[in-house]
Amino acid sequence: MARIYVTRKVHFNAAHRLHNPAQTDDWNRETFGKCNSPNWHGHNYELDVTVAGAPDPDTGFVVDLAALKRTLERLVVEPLDHKNLNLDVPFLAGIPTSTENLAIAIWQQIAPHVPGLHEIVLRETPNNSVVYRGE
Amino acid sequence: MARIYVTRKVHFNAAHRLHNPAQTDDWNRETFGKCNSPNWHGHNYELDVTVAGAPDPDTGFVVDLAALKRTLERLVVEPLDHKNLNLDVPFLAGIPTSTENLAIAIWQQIAPHVPGLHEIVLRETPNNSVVYRGE
Amino acid sequence: MARIYVTRKVHFNAAHRLHNPAQTDDWNRETFGKCNSPNWHGHNYELDVTVAGAPDPDTGFVVDLAALKRTLERLVVEPLDHKNLNLDVPFLAGIPTSTENLAIAIWQQIAPHVPGLHEIVLRETPNNSVVYRGE
Amino acid sequence: MARIYVTRKVHFNAAHRLHNPAQTDDWNRETFGKCNSPNWHGHNYELDVTVAGAPDPDTGFVVDLAALKRTLERLVVEPLDHKNLNLDVPFLAGIPTSTENLAIAIWQQIAPHVPGLHEIVLRETPNNSVVYRGE
Amino acid sequence: MARIYVTRKVHFNAAHRLHNPAQTDDWNRETFGKCNSPNWHGHNYELDVTVAGAPDPDTGFVVDLAALKRTLERLVVEPLDHKNLNLDVPFLAGIPTSTENLAIAIWQQIAPHVPGLHEIVLRETPNNSVVYRGE
Amino acid sequence: MARIYVTRKVHFNAAHRLHNPAQTDDWNRETFGKCNSPNWHGHNYELDVTVAGAPDPDTGFVVDLAALKRTLERLVVEPLDHKNLNLDVPFLAGIPTSTENLAIAIWQQIAPHVPGLHEIVLRETPNNSVVYRGE
Repeated sequence: MARIYVTRKVHFNAAHRLHNPAQTDDWNRETFGKCNSPNWHGHNYELDVTVAGAPDPDTGFVVDLAALKRTLERLVVEPLDHKNLNLDVPFLAGIPTSTENLAIAIWQQIAPHVPGLHEIVLRETPNNSVVYRGE
Repeated sequence: MARIYVTRKVHFNAAHRLHNPAQTDDWNRETFGKCNSPNWHGHNYELDVTVAGAPDPDTGFVVDLAALKRTLERLVVEPLDHKNLNLDVPFLAGIPTSTENLAIAIWQQIAPHVPGLHEIVLRETPNNSVVYRGE
Repeated sequence: MARIYVTRKVHFNAAHRLHNPAQTDDWNRETFGKCNSPNWHGHNYELDVTVAGAPDPDTGFVVDLAALKRTLERLVVEPLDHKNLNLDVPFLAGIPTSTENLAIAIWQQIAPHVPGLHEIVLRETPNNSVVYRGE
Repeated sequence: MARIYVTRKVHFNAAHRLHNPAQTDDWNRETFGKCNSPNWHGHNYELDVTVAGAPDPDTGFVVDLAALKRTLERLVVEPLDHKNLNLDVPFLAGIPTSTENLAIAIWQQIAPHVPGLHEIVLRETPNNSVVYRGE
Repeated sequence: MARIYVTRKVHFNAAHRLHNPAQTDDWNRETFGKCNSPNWHGHNYELDVTVAGAPDPDTGFVVDLAALKRTLERLVVEPLDHKNLNLDVPFLAGIPTSTENLAIAIWQQIAPHVPGLHEIVLRETPNNSVVYRGE
Repeated sequence: MARIYVTRKVHFNAAHRLHNPAQTDDWNRETFGKCNSPNWHGHNYELDVTVAGAPDPDTGFVVDLAALKRTLERLVVEPLDHKNLNLDVPFLAGIPTSTENLAIAIWQQIAPHVPGLHEIVLRETPNNSVVYRGE
């Protein structure tokens, strides 16, 4: 049986701020620099979700990408798009909203609903991105 | 004398919210939809600034792009990058932060300092952008 | 009143073939080369639609991009996406489906429904595109 | 000896339709949705082919990319570009032309002629892609 | 008769150095900065060539893009690709190889051979580009 | 502890020539073709540097990307940007400047200074790239 990796991309636009409330304001300013700016900033986030498996002989599909897109709309885009990652998202409450933590949290949200989930890539800007594989 | 158009691109990441305080909350929600989300959202903005003129015979330059970049860093990137467009930017105070209004305001900031300024393109997302020529 | 240009991008994937039935098969093969391939080929088309006007003082919008998107979905994406441009599209019947003709036909479909329509850009491949302004 | 991965990109534009002739028309419509549209649609496909190995000490090359490009032109671009994947391609006969199946079939065509073949990435649209490593 | 604008993109990779031999070394270093680096640097240049006209009723073409591509290969890509713009290109002899001057020189090379030539865009890097219309 | 991969992109523009001085001119011309062009050519190189590790609980960072950027500016961009890879770069002396060799040499420069370095991707053109993981 062939093993193949299928990727679907989704987008969301969100505000956030890097800030650890357990630390002093000075520590936050020094550690996070302009990303600690008090009144938030934001990004056009781009998320690639990859599923691994063997193509179904009848359809040629590892996964129904239309169904995967609906799952990602429900679990990722609706809770995050046009939202404040620090204030509006229960599953991010209390953790610094670094791209790393955001990717891990997204993985935890979608993994139970995406059989064969293999990897996610989250791009915060054209220059910065992270990859997470649930390890 | 040849007339040629030279473009330099800069980026900034900012939070904003479409909201007109002179209108009711209902009007704002209905008019701006998810862009009115109360706790802000944000974008990776991309700005192209175009200067028109004849190349200097000694340098072959219409404009010194390194100097133009410094001007844009000072007048656009520093006041807008990692900022909240509604709260942190004096030259945007009191106007809805639509891409249109943001482009016009950027033009007004840079035009006195950029001889030959011809056009700016401001991209809010890969799907939405505006062009302004000071008309 | 400021004049500003606002652009919204949409996509559609379609099959087509360059073929003029009023000409001989030899003429078609010689004129259109591989684009005349008998069993069709296809493209991921990308369409930028630009509207010009002054921003509304209350909204900061030249045009409500969400409404423009719905208009483009109805008038362009629904009739063209996952279709055969030569066989399935009444407004393209009987004309060679060059990018030029496709752009002019799209303009004619949308112009009555898009006040302030200024320009469309239609990209057939990363290397080939056309611009039409209704002239 | 260093192990390094070298990638060359090629493009082809093709028509196709997702349709399994062993199933009913209703099953096909329900399973494949608009991708089952009867008169075909199409895509600008983008293929990345990656070869792994150690650089030759004399050339610094893992593989001669000009030769690899000629091989890919002959084995992939010529049979697929400006063709109908369902009708015109002997090595795709009788299988649904999903991106997954297309990638596996391309791998089988090129693997005997590309020593060190490690991975291929096939993009059907900017949002959908697959990776295959011959597993 | 419709007027429409058709664009074809080509690429070339070249070395160059900004240096005006009529000026002192100090002037060149101060004026051009790192672009005056003595042993050359280089770019992946990207050139968009736009032709304006009415589509031919038989073909739907303003211009035969395959023929335009051959013209651009002969007049632009062959003389510039994998070359040193300061040393290897007769039509650039004696002028600073700024993007502006390079665009004007390319226009002068192709204009006599490209009926309806309307505009060229030359990108030196993702951040810097010029537009020339023969004015 | 989660393992996650964080990538930062940097750019440099350089001239080079594929030429092995231990071989004859004929061998070089035949082996490297236009890449052996005597007066150099050049590229806009794009480098992705990936670090693997667990996010720090206080910051959410695997690595401080601002610090990583400074390291890459010092060790990669300063020695390579606007330089001739064959003439100006001590750590490339005497080896053919293929993308493979350039990637391996960059790895060796940065690995001692980048804890957790996992992978680099080096793109010479939009069509050609290499991946190296220090194996």
